[in-house]
Amino acid sequence: MAMKRAATSAIRALSSSSPSSSVSSGSSTRLFHASAESKKIVGVFYKANEYASLNPNFVGSLEGALGIRDWLESQGHQYIVTDDKEGLDSELEKHIPDLHVLITTPFHPAYVTAERIKRAKNLQLLLTAGIGSDHIDLKAAAAAGLTVAEVTGSNVVSVAEDELMRILILVRNFLPGYHQVINGEWNVAAIAYRAYDLEGKTVGTVGAGRIGKLLLQRLKPFNCNLLYHDRLKMDPELEKQTGAKFEEDLDSLLSKCDVVVINTPLTEKTRGMFDKERIAKMKKGVLIVNNARGAIMDTQAVVDACSSGQIGGYSGDVWNPQPAPKDHPWRYMPNQAMTPHISGTTIDGQLRYAAGVKDMLDRYFKGEEFPPQNYIVKEGKLASQYL
Amino acid sequence: MAMKRAATSAIRALSSSSPSSSVSSGSSTRLFHASAESKKIVGVFYKANEYASLNPNFVGSLEGALGIRDWLESQGHQYIVTDDKEGLDSELEKHIPDLHVLITTPFHPAYVTAERIKRAKNLQLLLTAGIGSDHIDLKAAAAAGLTVAEVTGSNVVSVAEDELMRILILVRNFLPGYHQVINGEWNVAAIAYRAYDLEGKTVGTVGAGRIGKLLLQRLKPFNCNLLYHDRLKMDPELEKQTGAKFEEDLDSLLSKCDVVVINTPLTEKTRGMFDKERIAKMKKGVLIVNNARGAIMDTQAVVDACSSGQIGGYSGDVWNPQPAPKDHPWRYMPNQAMTPHISGTTIDGQLRYAAGVKDMLDRYFKGEEFPPQNYIVKEGKLASQYL
Repeated sequence: MAMKRAATSAIRALSSSSPSSSVSSGSSTRLFHASAESKKIVGVFYKANEYASLNPNFVGSLEGALGIRDWLESQGHQYIVTDDKEGLDSELEKHIPDLHVLITTPFHPAYVTAERIKRAKNLQLLLTAGIGSDHIDLKAAAAAGLTVAEVTGSNVVSVAEDELMRILILVRNFLPGYHQVINGEWNVAAIAYRAYDLEGKTVGTVGAGRIGKLLLQRLKPFNCNLLYHDRLKMDPELEKQTGAKFEEDLDSLLSKCDVVVINTPLTEKTRGMFDKERIAKMKKGVLIVNNARGAIMDTQAVVDACSSGQIGGYSGDVWNPQPAPKDHPWRYMPNQAMTPHISGTTIDGQLRYAAGVKDMLDRYFKGEEFPPQNYIVKEGKLASQYL
Repeated sequence: MAMKRAATSAIRALSSSSPSSSVSSGSSTRLFHASAESKKIVGVFYKANEYASLNPNFVGSLEGALGIRDWLESQGHQYIVTDDKEGLDSELEKHIPDLHVLITTPFHPAYVTAERIKRAKNLQLLLTAGIGSDHIDLKAAAAAGLTVAEVTGSNVVSVAEDELMRILILVRNFLPGYHQVINGEWNVAAIAYRAYDLEGKTVGTVGAGRIGKLLLQRLKPFNCNLLYHDRLKMDPELEKQTGAKFEEDLDSLLSKCDVVVINTPLTEKTRGMFDKERIAKMKKGVLIVNNARGAIMDTQAVVDACSSGQIGGYSGDVWNPQPAPKDHPWRYMPNQAMTPHISGTTIDGQLRYAAGVKDMLDRYFKGEEFPPQNYIVKEGKLASQYL
């Protein structure tokens, strides 16, 4: 994850808690001598309620609070957690003026807008517990000299596994059979007429970053034709290992695939990239899996294509916005296999991203660098793929 | 699939259509000079109704009739298909007295009882379109000197893929999320508190025949601890390739596994083998996938263990009996991810087993041997694993 370095960027003086010094030029090491002070850290997580007590490892919830409360408080820091994140009357908003660190997740995203960043005079660090920081206005964060970091790699396995599950659910037409069971029915034909094996099908991933590569590795024994599209070809060794073929042209890949998996981050370039025209270029009855971000799709175009049969099945855990409102049309379109945003927040994933957040906070207090791949915005400079 | 040869077995004279000669000793080659006569062939398949016309490759249905009608009739054979299979007034029963060949499937099983075999004076050959012939009274078939064969391998990939799907559905707690979506809800915590990655978990297969091996190969990239129990150790090369460890003692395997997959045929030895006592030996919250046969489980013991939490999730496509009645308790037990019997009858599977049945009929007409692995009962002799 290369960084674009622009010497002229405004860099917030991270070592200072004084709002008046919040935009100034400074050396990139100032952050890393911030250790002596007590910090106000706010975390926004989904509430577990009655589920909180059912699993001692449920650290990703509001109640679990990443398991770092005692550790933070023993060092004199203030730690506030909430799930109340929307609007000017929200609990989060109360703390915006004086928080130093804001921890958010993609699963219950606190939208960190330019306005919020402007009001957050003491804000130095935005940490994503998980992967994906598109709920943050990264340009505004960069302009304000903030650092934005995620726990890269923390839940890539979780998401890749979930994608393979969704591919199989669609290809094998699982849900109509399940519905028959709970409805007291038995009609094998109504399932079988459109149930297939994955073997021999053409599966393509749009984006072959960490998650896409893990997916291709897991798909390898299924004897599919594997394709991938990305800005760059992958390591030849991995290409050989997975047997996946590079497709430089996205539309060429789309025209060949029985199954398309979306594994690209949400950026200004990818927002709405799967619109009516692009979906029309895909094979009739294509199956689409999207655990990346809902806004990569044109919401209504997906509904229309599922209704017409152009899309034969659509499964994913990402929506625009989140939480999905009760009347979100993807809830009610035919041949969907959707869930709330869950794939990256398995108990295993939670334990990894909680450990990753703790590690970055520890480094922040000690004035040390983060693992380089974690940076989205490093002291005002945006990582290259977000430019 | 080794054959036990017992020279004393009664062998039905397969070359004769005379009921009086139906039990006699005879050379094992008689079957293979049966070509000159017109045969009456009956197939029992599930009805597709309105789904029949939706896919030209839907050959496994009653309407598709394995795609062999023109071929059979052009050779002067009579071919009757029905889905009406139960009781003395059924369409199947009408043809029992004079049919020569009966084609059945595990998906909509025509139960071939000793009584039916007794009444089927002309019956020579029982073919299973698919895998699994436990709906046939094999001892009675052997005693009557019949040949029973299935299309071994025709849908092993289909079933193995389906098993991996079900493992992921249970481990990742898919269905509660899907229910939230269709019910207009959004509660990530209610899913996440018991959603896990498959990575790092211990997965064991009880039975490592063709399907079990294909499953292990597909599990390999998920970085699990893989165990298997079978009568024999598998080929060392495959053991090395999959990393699966042999467990000679079934209960030892069961006590270690987070996920248990059942891949053993239904025989007198395996019927009801997962009873209350055996389930109690498994890890609390174990996830069980069973696409083998419903009767391997004690039905009520599974319901009780799902209700108590001893079983954390149960998924499969096999029931006892089939079709499952409306009040089958597995439909209504907690944490189930069941479907009707579907995994082996994907469109791809259908095309393969239809081709396999056609090939065996062709060999039968020409008096040729079948592929050796297809035999369950060869002219009155039962394959070794059914003894």
